[in-house]
Amino acid sequence: MKAKVYVNLKPGVLDPQGKAIQHSVELLGFNGISDIRQGKYFEIGLDSALGEAAARESVSRMAREVLSNPITEDFSVEIEA
Amino acid sequence: MKAKVYVNLKPGVLDPQGKAIQHSVELLGFNGISDIRQGKYFEIGLDSALGEAAARESVSRMAREVLSNPITEDFSVEIEA
Repeated sequence: MKAKVYVNLKPGVLDPQGKAIQHSVELLGFNGISDIRQGKYFEIGLDSALGEAAARESVSRMAREVLSNPITEDFSVEIEA
Repeated sequence: MKAKVYVNLKPGVLDPQGKAIQHSVELLGFNGISDIRQGKYFEIGLDSALGEAAARESVSRMAREVLSNPITEDFSVEIEA
C-alpha cells in the first residue's frame, strides 16, 4: 500500500522560493504565469497488513506532527491500494 | 487555470533525505512504514486565456527544462480548470 502526502504553504504565507522560480521561468521565456508556489511531496510505502482506514489515520497523524508545520502549511493525504 | 507539477526521484536513485525522515518517524513511534521518499510539488497559476492543451504543453516543457533534473527525477503534470 502506498500513501502520498502533499504539503503546501497556506494561502496567506509568502513564498520567496516560488517567486524566485517564477522570475527565472519568466526570464527563460515562459509566459502567462500568474503565480508559482513550491510545496513538498512524500511517497510513503506502507505494510499492506494495515487496513486503509488505519493507514489513512496513521499517515494523517504523521503529516500533521512530522511532515508539515501546522502554523504555515496545509497538507493532504491520498491512500493507494 | 492551475497546474500542478509533481517531481520525484527515479526509482533507482538513493534518497538519503527520505531515509532520514523514515528513521525519525520510526523513532517517534510510527510503525508499518516500508519506505519514505521526498519529492517536490509546484502549484502554478496560469492565465486562463491559455487553452488547456497549450497550458499542458507549456507546463510540461517548464517541468522538463527547469523544475526537474531529467537525470535523476521524473515528473508528472496535472491541469485544473
